[in-house]
Amino acid sequence: MILTVTLNAALDITYQVPRFQPRRSHRVSEVLERPGGKGLNVARVLAALGHEAVVTGFAGGGTGAALRRLLAEVDGVTDALVPVVGATRRTIGVVDTGGEATQLNEPGPLITGTEWEEFTACYARLLRGAAAVALCGSLPPGVPVGSYARLIREAHAAHIPVLLDTSGEALRRGLAARPDVVKPNTDELAGLTGSTEPLRAAVDTRRRGAHAVAASLGAEGMLAVTATGAWRAAPPRRLTGNPTGAGDSAVAGLLSGLVEGESWPDRLARAVALSAATVRAPVAGEFDRATYEELLPRVKVSEQPAAA
Amino acid sequence: MILTVTLNAALDITYQVPRFQPRRSHRVSEVLERPGGKGLNVARVLAALGHEAVVTGFAGGGTGAALRRLLAEVDGVTDALVPVVGATRRTIGVVDTGGEATQLNEPGPLITGTEWEEFTACYARLLRGAAAVALCGSLPPGVPVGSYARLIREAHAAHIPVLLDTSGEALRRGLAARPDVVKPNTDELAGLTGSTEPLRAAVDTRRRGAHAVAASLGAEGMLAVTATGAWRAAPPRRLTGNPTGAGDSAVAGLLSGLVEGESWPDRLARAVALSAATVRAPVAGEFDRATYEELLPRVKVSEQPAAA
Repeated sequence: MILTVTLNAALDITYQVPRFQPRRSHRVSEVLERPGGKGLNVARVLAALGHEAVVTGFAGGGTGAALRRLLAEVDGVTDALVPVVGATRRTIGVVDTGGEATQLNEPGPLITGTEWEEFTACYARLLRGAAAVALCGSLPPGVPVGSYARLIREAHAAHIPVLLDTSGEALRRGLAARPDVVKPNTDELAGLTGSTEPLRAAVDTRRRGAHAVAASLGAEGMLAVTATGAWRAAPPRRLTGNPTGAGDSAVAGLLSGLVEGESWPDRLARAVALSAATVRAPVAGEFDRATYEELLPRVKVSEQPAAA
Repeated sequence: MILTVTLNAALDITYQVPRFQPRRSHRVSEVLERPGGKGLNVARVLAALGHEAVVTGFAGGGTGAALRRLLAEVDGVTDALVPVVGATRRTIGVVDTGGEATQLNEPGPLITGTEWEEFTACYARLLRGAAAVALCGSLPPGVPVGSYARLIREAHAAHIPVLLDTSGEALRRGLAARPDVVKPNTDELAGLTGSTEPLRAAVDTRRRGAHAVAASLGAEGMLAVTATGAWRAAPPRRLTGNPTGAGDSAVAGLLSGLVEGESWPDRLARAVALSAATVRAPVAGEFDRATYEELLPRVKVSEQPAAA
């Protein structure tokens, strides 16, 4: 079983409007609701790849109930979310015919000390059956900023590898606990290290504590810097579409490859093919299986100069 | 008791964002949820004026449950909403520091034939105790477009006066059943009659079936054309603020004045003062009582030439 942690899960709502303009009133022509938050997306992709996935984190209020009902419909994903009094946040994407979505993200619910302790007890129980753990996304209010470091240490004490996918201070603090893999994008790498050169920034991020860095480079693929070498993986062609969830699919590719004992070049190829297949899917956050299977053997992986 | 009908009730969500721009991602700094839909707003103002108000219509799903929880906190308003399988729609207003809100309105739930019959039975029961009825807002999918005419006829059979506040085809069809009062704004008047001259359009609307027309003229006040005369009522000064709910407060003013046996000029003055006090309230859809009490004796009501 692979465990994914989403402390700030969301009810993900997509509105289709004919032509979105600020300061106007719009009739929404289509409403789509999905269980949201990075770790939930990762779990859905893991399940589609044939892995048993368990999700934990927090859910509360009417929005939390709606999220759990939708999650129950996803095959292969087990709901181990911890109930809280506050309401799960909504994230709203407004999509029209042209260009990128407009995104409105509510703040998360306030997590009490009691709820946080209930979560850590639940996490300790779930670790016993886990082959790997992914810690994903932002921290809701009330959760201590150093929490990812604590969760990483507990997983390591149980000899379970951890992937950390977060940003800002939560990432910076998490690195101190030496996660096995971090998956920043180029913005997060630059924010952390001050460098906009990905290889240099990834090497620097390893120095700050991560055993391996798998950085997503958007449409150009991924770059990994590990203890045994460095690789770049690129899709065979540039793919256009909706990038929502592409990073989460990459995490699922890295984790499933890790659990299956694949080499780093193979894990990277899988992550890049899944990412690209997500960009090509008609629904945001899903991946297109035919595209994935077509791309997987054609991802170009090249060794990078061993940067000191 | 005054009965208000909101067939397309909504969970009304307001998002405060620092600076709203399309095609960007925004962190919402403040989330406000209220029971929404015109008839619910009318009932809240009626209750604040000391009237017993009962709301009916439809509520369903997690959003409907959230709406009912919020409604239970409003003193003086009784919830007689009919449960439905479909989910109550959300209406989202995005507010930033400058100018008007950006509004996103979901479509309503699909109402089944069985649910519609349950509603009409509930409506017939509630009519027995009602001194007046307001039929407010749009029709959700599945409700026959001629429904307001049917509801008006049933109220008249029970000798209960009816105010109709809707637009488009629902208004056009409703007029055929001769409602006691309609409250269009200038856009709705123009859509109905083709005339942008309010007095002419109001006279025309009476000819199409309404016993009285009380048209809202925005910041300029209101115009009434009735069987016994025509009046214009204007606030003593122009008031700026958030116009959300101002029309619903005007409906509450007209209805409460009707039930209390006030003259048309006094009803109009009350409606205009409540409307203006709503524009001045810090929270959208509430009214500022001090402003209301200050304005009420100072609204200027002038008789209009009896238009044939």
